[in-house]
Amino acid sequence: MRSPAGLRLGAAAALPLLLLLALRLPAPAVAGRPLVARDRKPAPSEAAATARWLAAQNTWGVLSTISSDLSGAPFGNVVSYSDGVPGESHGIPYFYLTTLDPTARDALEDERTSFTLSEFPLGTCGKVDPENPTCAKLTLTGKLKVVDHKSPEADLAKTALFSKHPEMEGWPKNHHFEIFKLEIENIFLIDWFGGPKPISPSQYLDYGR
Amino acid sequence: MRSPAGLRLGAAAALPLLLLLALRLPAPAVAGRPLVARDRKPAPSEAAATARWLAAQNTWGVLSTISSDLSGAPFGNVVSYSDGVPGESHGIPYFYLTTLDPTARDALEDERTSFTLSEFPLGTCGKVDPENPTCAKLTLTGKLKVVDHKSPEADLAKTALFSKHPEMEGWPKNHHFEIFKLEIENIFLIDWFGGPKPISPSQYLDYGR
Repeated sequence: MRSPAGLRLGAAAALPLLLLLALRLPAPAVAGRPLVARDRKPAPSEAAATARWLAAQNTWGVLSTISSDLSGAPFGNVVSYSDGVPGESHGIPYFYLTTLDPTARDALEDERTSFTLSEFPLGTCGKVDPENPTCAKLTLTGKLKVVDHKSPEADLAKTALFSKHPEMEGWPKNHHFEIFKLEIENIFLIDWFGGPKPISPSQYLDYGR
Repeated sequence: MRSPAGLRLGAAAALPLLLLLALRLPAPAVAGRPLVARDRKPAPSEAAATARWLAAQNTWGVLSTISSDLSGAPFGNVVSYSDGVPGESHGIPYFYLTTLDPTARDALEDERTSFTLSEFPLGTCGKVDPENPTCAKLTLTGKLKVVDHKSPEADLAKTALFSKHPEMEGWPKNHHFEIFKLEIENIFLIDWFGGPKPISPSQYLDYGR
């Protein structure tokens, strides 16, 4: 079933079963996960759907910037995000960041950023290793921009963020948290053997419209 | 208890309880986690211990490189790693990477790399948000180097990797996986309010010796 032409890795015998598990079993609960509807993982043949599923189901990831503190070295930082209220995702990741933290400072100097998500913490990879290509991974690369706090987009983003991260609403005002978003220019998705899936930002953003 | 001088964020009332939960309760199981001894989280006053605990307890993270495919933009990628066999960690993260993947290719052109870990997937952050500073995050920045496959270090690294990631041993030979390690030059740890904890690589690496 759904065995792509590009199948390269071994251990193929166990895969239909693993895939079936990923598709059929209810995902186990993971500590600390907020109340997001746990949709089923799309099939590997549905690349845009899988990327959007990962973005909708996760609540945190790693934002990588060019570090001004570290002479231009890459710097990955754990951040929370939301791409929409539960059940109504739009694919664009919004963040709530403060310049007390290096990530926001870096982005204000050099917008080039990537945002990386793994399927592993969702609990749907079963016993498959986090680096196994069937345990999906998504890297969105683009520009990290401040969202004008008076814009309608800021209202949408706040609703998206605060619905998935309720404690954010109470974070201290004097830390000057602002909403940032990733303007996606490039998508790297691995969800099966055979290398990254080609998906354009418009295929990703238009999925489900 | 253990309230640092640098306490800046609010919601302090709930924190002793949260901390107690993190320290006293057995951590819940997380799907797909391998059989690593689940030591208790060190107190926030023990910065090097906390950083080493995060490195020992996690099995995957995000490696960020300078992307040659994307004109020097940062690129974060989900990877598995090991800093030692279960119960005998040394702090240095070892990876099993192939140049079929951009991360290894990037590192061979520009060694500057960061490796980012979160406490959140361990299940010990309770209901605290992944971006909350009490849910620990660690970024090790340095140089990603190939380990000579004939060296004693390569034997040690393979034992460390294969004990935590048993399926790696069967990954296809024709993908030319090689062992890489991060030579740590800078450590960014957040495990409490008040900003990153100052830890030197030697404080981190010498912990527990």
